[in-house]
Amino acid sequence: MKALGRHILAEIYDCDPFVLNDRDLIEDILVKAALEAGAEVREVAFHKFSPQGVSGVVVISESHLTVHTWPELGYAAVDVFTCGDKVNPWDACNYIAEKFQAKHMTASEVKRGVFEKPVKVVNF
Amino acid sequence: MKALGRHILAEIYDCDPFVLNDRDLIEDILVKAALEAGAEVREVAFHKFSPQGVSGVVVISESHLTVHTWPELGYAAVDVFTCGDKVNPWDACNYIAEKFQAKHMTASEVKRGVFEKPVKVVNF
Repeated sequence: MKALGRHILAEIYDCDPFVLNDRDLIEDILVKAALEAGAEVREVAFHKFSPQGVSGVVVISESHLTVHTWPELGYAAVDVFTCGDKVNPWDACNYIAEKFQAKHMTASEVKRGVFEKPVKVVNF
Repeated sequence: MKALGRHILAEIYDCDPFVLNDRDLIEDILVKAALEAGAEVREVAFHKFSPQGVSGVVVISESHLTVHTWPELGYAAVDVFTCGDKVNPWDACNYIAEKFQAKHMTASEVKRGVFEKPVKVVNF
């Protein structure tokens, strides 16, 4: 069976709360994480919540990175979803955890788009 | 233990390939899925790939929806991540599968941000 993509779901705890509340810094970290892993950035959308917290996404050619932060809990939910063999999603995930100054992280990898048999290709 | 969020990872198969290759229609479907589920849309970013395929995200107050499509396989990888009790992520997920004219879907729900004990709140 062949999977189209690898998707890491990371729970990142005990981060620096000031980093987790800085929209511009988080955008910079996520974009650099994508680039560090060798991904190609296509679209970026980030949002700062009141009174605190940041949500954002980086759409890459290989799929996406997302982040949601709870500065008051020192917690961030991070996803790194990559397709193909060129990019290792763990490189991006570990980069983000390091820049968030996380004390610990639990993460799991899920295979996405698993096909048991060859599929018909539609021409456009 | 209390989870901050619910995250659905959906593998949506045997969709209409023409829907899966229509960037504007997919953006419309994802935004409407968010609204149908009662979510508040904050940011939207979609990208059309050459020769085919669409990636996109809707950042909502409650977290996010993402989609990646492979029209040539009739397949879409969809994520719906919601926080709080107001929005049921399955409402959005099922809406998307229906609009993609999917013949079948496998999906699982993952809890995000699980805390075992009360956490200190940082004031900003």
